[in-house]
Amino acid sequence: MKIKVLKDILGANEQIAAKNRELLDKNKVFAVNIMASPGAGKTSVVLQTIRALKDKVRIGVIEGDIASSIDAETVAKEGVPVVQINTGGECHLEANQLESALNNLPLADIDLLLIENVGNLVCPAEFNLGEHRKVLIASVPEGDDKPFKYPLMFNTVDALILNKIDLLPYVKFNVNAFTKTVKNINSRVEIFKVSCTSGEGIKAWAKWLTAQMKQR
Amino acid sequence: MKIKVLKDILGANEQIAAKNRELLDKNKVFAVNIMASPGAGKTSVVLQTIRALKDKVRIGVIEGDIASSIDAETVAKEGVPVVQINTGGECHLEANQLESALNNLPLADIDLLLIENVGNLVCPAEFNLGEHRKVLIASVPEGDDKPFKYPLMFNTVDALILNKIDLLPYVKFNVNAFTKTVKNINSRVEIFKVSCTSGEGIKAWAKWLTAQMKQR
Repeated sequence: MKIKVLKDILGANEQIAAKNRELLDKNKVFAVNIMASPGAGKTSVVLQTIRALKDKVRIGVIEGDIASSIDAETVAKEGVPVVQINTGGECHLEANQLESALNNLPLADIDLLLIENVGNLVCPAEFNLGEHRKVLIASVPEGDDKPFKYPLMFNTVDALILNKIDLLPYVKFNVNAFTKTVKNINSRVEIFKVSCTSGEGIKAWAKWLTAQMKQR
Repeated sequence: MKIKVLKDILGANEQIAAKNRELLDKNKVFAVNIMASPGAGKTSVVLQTIRALKDKVRIGVIEGDIASSIDAETVAKEGVPVVQINTGGECHLEANQLESALNNLPLADIDLLLIENVGNLVCPAEFNLGEHRKVLIASVPEGDDKPFKYPLMFNTVDALILNKIDLLPYVKFNVNAFTKTVKNINSRVEIFKVSCTSGEGIKAWAKWLTAQMKQR
């Protein structure tokens, strides 16, 4: 029964995700679904990405959270269009929530849409939204064992940002072991070592992102 | 429909949770449900708690993860009975999983049962397991805004361990603002500032825990 229900939900979600993708493509919007644990630095990466690219591409942002609009307010200060989705308890974004958010954004004026999912390493990996790329942000203080514990998330993404590398001197984290584990789970993933505090690694990430936009 | 399904699941869960509680009480086992984001330090707190208390109380551990048995293997080295639950995709523990795990533990030889939930700040808060206390571990590098974003989790717990305080010099985190926000959401919660790396704060936490065991 429970599995049946989940299948129905996922099936309906896929249909709406396909519609979202159509709408995005029609408007030439490239959408990135950004996932991570709570506090890994999703909003910081969004802010750094806006600052790195806003002179070249027109950016829009969707902020997903269970409650509050803190992140949307922070992002709005950068002068880009932003919509906050409050899931009201749900631990992930679903395609119908993206659909509503897209209706509230000036899609014709957006080239790159950054979608910040709810902070969670589990369920967001199961729900396609219609995005063009999926990105995971892992952070150094979380520890290098996370790929073993959340394999679906690490397997499902096109890029992985390892954030907070400025904290490497203060915590136990083996970057080589982490990278090797990730590549064993997902050989196609691009890995970027980043510090949103110092800005290190943002250029390489932004360069990859703009290249992906051209490939769609 | 979806809400109906969730209600059914939660209703069935409550019944099994009540049975678990009965079994725990019959065996004089005091159970603590430990919840946190991925990488906040659940296993480190479990290890520190074992080391602080194992000469005074007999401890058992249940490790919940989607996949892998790394944490159970780490804990087993401390010489305490441990059972690993792999949820196989589910983002939280449910009472029936605790039920199975309890059947695989020598309950007559355990005074304190530490249950490490799946790393997630959302769904674990919705599912009672039959535990006597709920504890949340937040960690400094996650940032001080988490109570706004995950209010149910911060509201539902009896104690909050703020872990990784050794990283306070290196990240932006306002301890006073965080504490105030938490207390606004949950006025009864006990807050402990801890570093599992240095051992700071573990004594106060262990003291509270043993006092709770006496009150049940």
